[in-house]
Amino acid sequence: MGRLTRKDVLNKAEALKNWGKWGPDDELGVLNYITPEDIVNAAKLVQKGKVFGLGLNLDEHGPQRGIFGGRWNPLHQMLATGTDAIAGTQDVTPALRYADDAINLPTQCATQWDALSHVFLEDKMWNGYPAALVDSRGAHKNGIEKFADKMVGRGVLLDVARYKGVEYLEDGYPITIADLDNTAAAQGVEVRRGDFVIVRTGQLEDRLHKDDWGGYAGGDAPGRAFETLDWIHTKQIAAICSDTWGIEVRPNDTGPDVFQPWHWVTIPAIGIVHGEIFSLQELAEDCADDGVYAFFFCAPPLVITHGTGSPINPQAIK
Amino acid sequence: MGRLTRKDVLNKAEALKNWGKWGPDDELGVLNYITPEDIVNAAKLVQKGKVFGLGLNLDEHGPQRGIFGGRWNPLHQMLATGTDAIAGTQDVTPALRYADDAINLPTQCATQWDALSHVFLEDKMWNGYPAALVDSRGAHKNGIEKFADKMVGRGVLLDVARYKGVEYLEDGYPITIADLDNTAAAQGVEVRRGDFVIVRTGQLEDRLHKDDWGGYAGGDAPGRAFETLDWIHTKQIAAICSDTWGIEVRPNDTGPDVFQPWHWVTIPAIGIVHGEIFSLQELAEDCADDGVYAFFFCAPPLVITHGTGSPINPQAIK
Amino acid sequence: MGRLTRKDVLNKAEALKNWGKWGPDDELGVLNYITPEDIVNAAKLVQKGKVFGLGLNLDEHGPQRGIFGGRWNPLHQMLATGTDAIAGTQDVTPALRYADDAINLPTQCATQWDALSHVFLEDKMWNGYPAALVDSRGAHKNGIEKFADKMVGRGVLLDVARYKGVEYLEDGYPITIADLDNTAAAQGVEVRRGDFVIVRTGQLEDRLHKDDWGGYAGGDAPGRAFETLDWIHTKQIAAICSDTWGIEVRPNDTGPDVFQPWHWVTIPAIGIVHGEIFSLQELAEDCADDGVYAFFFCAPPLVITHGTGSPINPQAIK
Amino acid sequence: MGRLTRKDVLNKAEALKNWGKWGPDDELGVLNYITPEDIVNAAKLVQKGKVFGLGLNLDEHGPQRGIFGGRWNPLHQMLATGTDAIAGTQDVTPALRYADDAINLPTQCATQWDALSHVFLEDKMWNGYPAALVDSRGAHKNGIEKFADKMVGRGVLLDVARYKGVEYLEDGYPITIADLDNTAAAQGVEVRRGDFVIVRTGQLEDRLHKDDWGGYAGGDAPGRAFETLDWIHTKQIAAICSDTWGIEVRPNDTGPDVFQPWHWVTIPAIGIVHGEIFSLQELAEDCADDGVYAFFFCAPPLVITHGTGSPINPQAIK
Repeated sequence: MGRLTRKDVLNKAEALKNWGKWGPDDELGVLNYITPEDIVNAAKLVQKGKVFGLGLNLDEHGPQRGIFGGRWNPLHQMLATGTDAIAGTQDVTPALRYADDAINLPTQCATQWDALSHVFLEDKMWNGYPAALVDSRGAHKNGIEKFADKMVGRGVLLDVARYKGVEYLEDGYPITIADLDNTAAAQGVEVRRGDFVIVRTGQLEDRLHKDDWGGYAGGDAPGRAFETLDWIHTKQIAAICSDTWGIEVRPNDTGPDVFQPWHWVTIPAIGIVHGEIFSLQELAEDCADDGVYAFFFCAPPLVITHGTGSPINPQAIK
Repeated sequence: MGRLTRKDVLNKAEALKNWGKWGPDDELGVLNYITPEDIVNAAKLVQKGKVFGLGLNLDEHGPQRGIFGGRWNPLHQMLATGTDAIAGTQDVTPALRYADDAINLPTQCATQWDALSHVFLEDKMWNGYPAALVDSRGAHKNGIEKFADKMVGRGVLLDVARYKGVEYLEDGYPITIADLDNTAAAQGVEVRRGDFVIVRTGQLEDRLHKDDWGGYAGGDAPGRAFETLDWIHTKQIAAICSDTWGIEVRPNDTGPDVFQPWHWVTIPAIGIVHGEIFSLQELAEDCADDGVYAFFFCAPPLVITHGTGSPINPQAIK
Repeated sequence: MGRLTRKDVLNKAEALKNWGKWGPDDELGVLNYITPEDIVNAAKLVQKGKVFGLGLNLDEHGPQRGIFGGRWNPLHQMLATGTDAIAGTQDVTPALRYADDAINLPTQCATQWDALSHVFLEDKMWNGYPAALVDSRGAHKNGIEKFADKMVGRGVLLDVARYKGVEYLEDGYPITIADLDNTAAAQGVEVRRGDFVIVRTGQLEDRLHKDDWGGYAGGDAPGRAFETLDWIHTKQIAAICSDTWGIEVRPNDTGPDVFQPWHWVTIPAIGIVHGEIFSLQELAEDCADDGVYAFFFCAPPLVITHGTGSPINPQAIK
Repeated sequence: MGRLTRKDVLNKAEALKNWGKWGPDDELGVLNYITPEDIVNAAKLVQKGKVFGLGLNLDEHGPQRGIFGGRWNPLHQMLATGTDAIAGTQDVTPALRYADDAINLPTQCATQWDALSHVFLEDKMWNGYPAALVDSRGAHKNGIEKFADKMVGRGVLLDVARYKGVEYLEDGYPITIADLDNTAAAQGVEVRRGDFVIVRTGQLEDRLHKDDWGGYAGGDAPGRAFETLDWIHTKQIAAICSDTWGIEVRPNDTGPDVFQPWHWVTIPAIGIVHGEIFSLQELAEDCADDGVYAFFFCAPPLVITHGTGSPINPQAIK
């Protein structure tokens, strides 16, 4: 395949488009694939009682550098402190000594779910809703609050970096369908309908070890090649996650009239959300140790009314 | 018991204090009671594949009214919109049409975990750490980030309102040990070591139905009587949750020198955190329907470095 | 004049429209009327060396109640405190003991300038620029930063409430051209080209005295009648200010297809900005005492790049 | 003078301390030096009708990099947009098409006044008030709101860089008393009691021209030598301003037990506030052109209740 044009991308979106598949009022997309039975079976994967939190710490050391509309690292501010308490300033009647705080963050500044309102395909979003339904008051369709009880099921880790025998994949490395299938085969795990599929590139760990995010947020990255759209569509997975900023390989091989072409198809056309900036080191080491790459997965978003994403701390439980 | 004095409260704290029980460096408190085996067993409670999200919607309709240091309802702001997209303002080269947003909220403005740094006992916090370790830069001990992979286990609902045959318990109603035990017995559920225990008063649903929060945030409420501290300590539960602003009955029967006396003992002395403002209607109805009041519980906090609490969307899975 | 229709309003806008008067690139509107000589003459009004700050306090006691897109009262948060300092948490090497803070506020939550990008006339804003130039990244034309050195000149107080002999004008009272002219005559002050004209209704003081803002923010109010547009246009004043939320009488006598009709004409058509929520008590008392209703006026906006307004603390100097 | 010790600094503070000079309840410090007559005379300096705004633009391109407790560059967010307007999402009944926005900023992130509560001398602040009066709810004494109508008077520019014949003074260059006096003499301006004295180093312009702030915020800088404290005290000026982050030379020649020693004396002992990060290029060029270095100065703070500083846009009027 040569350089992707806008027309190629629109054609692929048309070919894989799931609009209307779950009725005209649907706001869940491929999360519809998950059945109650899938959840029951996923729970059976809890065999060791070991929990992995996949959320990156929310603080000023995060990856943001003002790309993409001025995302910032979380601002954490105290509303009451222990130093106040011991200075006696809280000892009014009635007295309680306490601390309190607040946090101000872009929903997608660290480990996060996109909502189905996050990316548009021309003038439309998932299921054909007009993009204009997302205005300064929020996403009046396809808001993240629709996922409040939907992010539970079977998780699968595809540790592509480990399969390739590297600490991390290089920026610009396109993960192919063959890479995905070979990794799954080598790691003895099957990707099933309704799975939360997590691809590890090693990029996040590499940047943490270097203590330098570089272009992590919005710059070059290893990630899924455009062709993997077909794999996603065929496999009928429920969500696609990774340890990079945008899952997609950067740069993708495109002409000047389209940017992040994989995004044009996944969220708005297929109706599959992204889980990004997952922190996978401990989980990946454990999977390598015990050879078990499937687990119970529970990653509830905050119930942000009309939100286009949510910070999360996903839990992989084995 | 007559009116509680500060001395009574300090004596009770001394009697139930778990400081040092898990070593001088502990920052987990009674979450230590949860074993891997408990988690494996809890997962077996997933029998129907049904998920309940217990998080209240995060928006301007929340309960805050500026009590307790100026907590506010969440501010949700858009960083990019669909209306921008269709106006063409995003069509620079390279082009991607998208929406993005941010949220600014007190960690305890809606459904939330307290951290063990949230309440002090005089000049100390959990495990004897000085309160001064919580300054304007955050909680340098007992921060919420320590719980990143700890909020998973067996959940139990004690639907006291339903047991009492009322829509909701009245403000000021003190839930006693007998109430808890009788509710558990009537609902056929046993409270075990390491459980996440959720008490339903009906107050949150009542205020939502009335479309008037009234004094929900910081005013009078039904809730746990002071005597239930012994029950909590003896049962060795892992966390205590409710559908009210502060779990504790308000007013509690105290003299002028102590306020929210139950808080003085739970968080800093026993080392048990609170899960507050849980939205329980659907879960409670389901439990009443199928008679099953225990479930798998997964309520990961955001990994807010040095945080004194976190907004959450707890998941009860049956 | 009967009920105003959308057509009436558009006709008036067309009649008074100053677009192009100062060239196609203008972003200052009628501030262009102010000459250097005006500023020199205004400075001569400083005769007593007495300064009046007209800014309302920025804190949680402000008038906002979530009208108009969720404006909130200012959130003031500490980044470092004296209690931290005395607890010794700042005494690292090198040592400095200090306090620091931040503020988060809608630009128009209290005493404020609107920018010329604040109100649109159908698809356009001042000087004919497309409204689409104001997107989620800000006002790319007619931003408040253009006024960084423009808000200086001759100020005139028209104390209509005092002229009418009342503490405050009633909600819904329409201030007419005759009211303005009679007040000026009675108070011995002439309104000149390039003036900053401040109209006092007494509403703000009344609400402060009652300790109840009621519908101050976005509800009914005394204010300028629609006919005063002609007065503004003819007088060639530079800015129009008041002690109410929106200067305009509320309700104005309109049909269902137009709201705040005076706003449709002032900002986008005439190119005159509003100064709102001015705190006038002390200034008004002084003017009544000495009979001098003209003064030096200096009200610099914050230089908010691409802002559609700015909080201010205007200074009237006599 | 050799390396400054903590003892030297405390001795100097003791020697220059103005506590009690204006009574035990004073919260204005040396702003008390300004008389009404000074203001009247200052207004006479308005000879050309030319206004200079000295505020740096408030946007993401500011100098902050998270030094000093996590100060950030201003976050400007839209609450309503023109793109919303033209998409029709505002055309409910009643209809008004508008834009609105908010800003979230540390009070000292750009051009700013410090309040007298900003820096402590051991356990005290200006006039001997306990530092503990500044807690998580703000500065209960010496708040910036006390200056709401006080920042008006005679301004004087001392363009030290121009006097020295350089574009900008080098980092670490200590401006001495001789430098100040020689600059004033060369530029034909006298520093008087009650003046707002503005020192230009050229550093801000240099960093803007290089498009690289480097260590501007909290790093090395040219600035006032410790000895200038005596000059400030003797001259009885009202405020001291500059185009750097902290006015003081960095590094100052201190031992390890004291940091920014000049700050220990100015704000808390002398009771003089700092105006920092002033943008002086245009004003300085005009002063060089016409040889007039004194002007009317008006720099109102926002009325931030209990604030420890305020963003400002100072106006120099000639």
